[in-house]
Amino acid sequence: MPIPQTVSKEKKSSPLDAMMLSQKDNLAAVNALILSRMQSDVPLIPKLAGHLIAGGGKRIRPLLTLASAALMGYKGTRTHKLAACVEFIHTATLLHDDVVDESDQRRGKASANALFGNEAAVLVGDFLFSRSFELMVEDGSLDVLRVLSHASAVIAEGEVLQLSMLNDISMNEESYLKIIGAKTAALFAAACQTGGLAAGATAQDCQKLYHYGYNLGLAFQISDDVLDYSGNQADLGKSIGDDFKEGKVTLPVILALQSASAEEKIFWQRCVQEVQQNDGDFIKALGILQKHDSLNKSLSQSHDYAVKAVESLKGLPDTHLREVMTELAFYAVNRSS
Amino acid sequence: MPIPQTVSKEKKSSPLDAMMLSQKDNLAAVNALILSRMQSDVPLIPKLAGHLIAGGGKRIRPLLTLASAALMGYKGTRTHKLAACVEFIHTATLLHDDVVDESDQRRGKASANALFGNEAAVLVGDFLFSRSFELMVEDGSLDVLRVLSHASAVIAEGEVLQLSMLNDISMNEESYLKIIGAKTAALFAAACQTGGLAAGATAQDCQKLYHYGYNLGLAFQISDDVLDYSGNQADLGKSIGDDFKEGKVTLPVILALQSASAEEKIFWQRCVQEVQQNDGDFIKALGILQKHDSLNKSLSQSHDYAVKAVESLKGLPDTHLREVMTELAFYAVNRSS
Repeated sequence: MPIPQTVSKEKKSSPLDAMMLSQKDNLAAVNALILSRMQSDVPLIPKLAGHLIAGGGKRIRPLLTLASAALMGYKGTRTHKLAACVEFIHTATLLHDDVVDESDQRRGKASANALFGNEAAVLVGDFLFSRSFELMVEDGSLDVLRVLSHASAVIAEGEVLQLSMLNDISMNEESYLKIIGAKTAALFAAACQTGGLAAGATAQDCQKLYHYGYNLGLAFQISDDVLDYSGNQADLGKSIGDDFKEGKVTLPVILALQSASAEEKIFWQRCVQEVQQNDGDFIKALGILQKHDSLNKSLSQSHDYAVKAVESLKGLPDTHLREVMTELAFYAVNRSS
Repeated sequence: MPIPQTVSKEKKSSPLDAMMLSQKDNLAAVNALILSRMQSDVPLIPKLAGHLIAGGGKRIRPLLTLASAALMGYKGTRTHKLAACVEFIHTATLLHDDVVDESDQRRGKASANALFGNEAAVLVGDFLFSRSFELMVEDGSLDVLRVLSHASAVIAEGEVLQLSMLNDISMNEESYLKIIGAKTAALFAAACQTGGLAAGATAQDCQKLYHYGYNLGLAFQISDDVLDYSGNQADLGKSIGDDFKEGKVTLPVILALQSASAEEKIFWQRCVQEVQQNDGDFIKALGILQKHDSLNKSLSQSHDYAVKAVESLKGLPDTHLREVMTELAFYAVNRSS
């Protein structure tokens, strides 16, 4: 007797799982390296860093470095150090982000700043950032150093721009894309490009990987911003509605504002610009986004970037891994967590 | 008719002034480079960074890079970029320091975090830090990158250690020296070593410059910690007593605690460990430090490090600049600002 209910409820393996599987040994080596290189004589450093690094996360950025290198035929171990660099930069920005956003939750757990204080979170972020550059120097490639130091500067610029435009409902799509391009896509792009550099790929192929990562990052972040309104909290492992609560203007709100009634404009102004929110406002916001189809329109933009990401891969080796990278781009759009 | 009063009141030119004079053109080029490379499309970045960078400061660290290179016979312009890197790292740590210490004053003006918020101060610090690494990559020396990325990691470690031991009156001289070695001396050392590397000095001579900088940094920081109790606010351009107010345990307090009476121990415990302070406590603290001669004893240790700094220069070119560097070490001990 068939049991379709059970089968349909079984969690389908995602392209991210497939990528992890293909890089299983490399990823284990990266994780070991991360753990060993976040050590310090100062006990608070591994304690705080470990809370965040061991606390899960998809490791998508280091995985992109490993996968990009593997796609270009690389079979060595140099990528382990470089993937760890990418994850350290990401972790440092998360630590500082949470201080800036005053977040008390990260990945469904108490955030590092909530547990250890803002001061420690800032300083341990600085440590991981510096350690990342030490690892790059050990690797010895000025090209990698150029790519990752530039990405780091761009990320910081994007974060400052985001801060400058917080609660600003006049923000347009262009500014939004600039912000997410800097704060998310730049590191996805650099992670992929670094993989290409490690593999000794041509400058042209490294550029392709860069563009894949950049567009994947945009697709990923737009979908993330949609999930903050539509996600299932259990799947996400974090609460939804955070962006709304902080008055962060993301694509769904920008699109809803483009065709907002006078009354709706006043609503967004109060909730997002002035951050004066009452019970039921989030539900009301969801209703307005629904009315203007803003979440679907956002996902449609996310999908466009996924298509661009896949197009960027043209001309690169047509292997199983490229197929996985292709699927990952579309998965970024439609994922539930 | 002689006017001795006026003459005696005239501010004597310091070795720091002499060093600045000897590097006048280089320093002007470094300042121009700093201003141009802290620019960004995001207006808040140059605004906030400019507040701190243009707001004075002795530029002692970039000056050490310039002077060390010049001592080793270097006459080119490569040092301009490297000196700017050193100053960017220093500025980034100051920005983060002020967030951690919740300082509202820096160099006699409102601190960047007080004016622009902690969030912006953290993120602009990250930007300057990343920009510094971009500049190093432009320069292209892996040796410089190694020295400065390591110094950055050590600084962050030192800051975390200091945070872990804040208000801890059981802190001993060893821990104190470890903290100031990391948070101050490491960058002084790296600044000098970087100058040597730029000049193409031998590894041995670069080590000498490193040790000069390290010991100078220790002398400088101990004297700074003494000035926080004994300084003249007008000379310093900042208020004294900040360390006491924050419950920061520095060398004068450690030395006073070594021979403290039971009653004095209770006093330090209340004021520094529990940070429960009343009017008149700072004056009382000064009296206790006076009684145990703790400020002079601290300055005597500072002097010992100045002697070590000067000894480190042995064997390096015996020029006017070496004389200035020698005088600078003793000036670090006895300065009034």
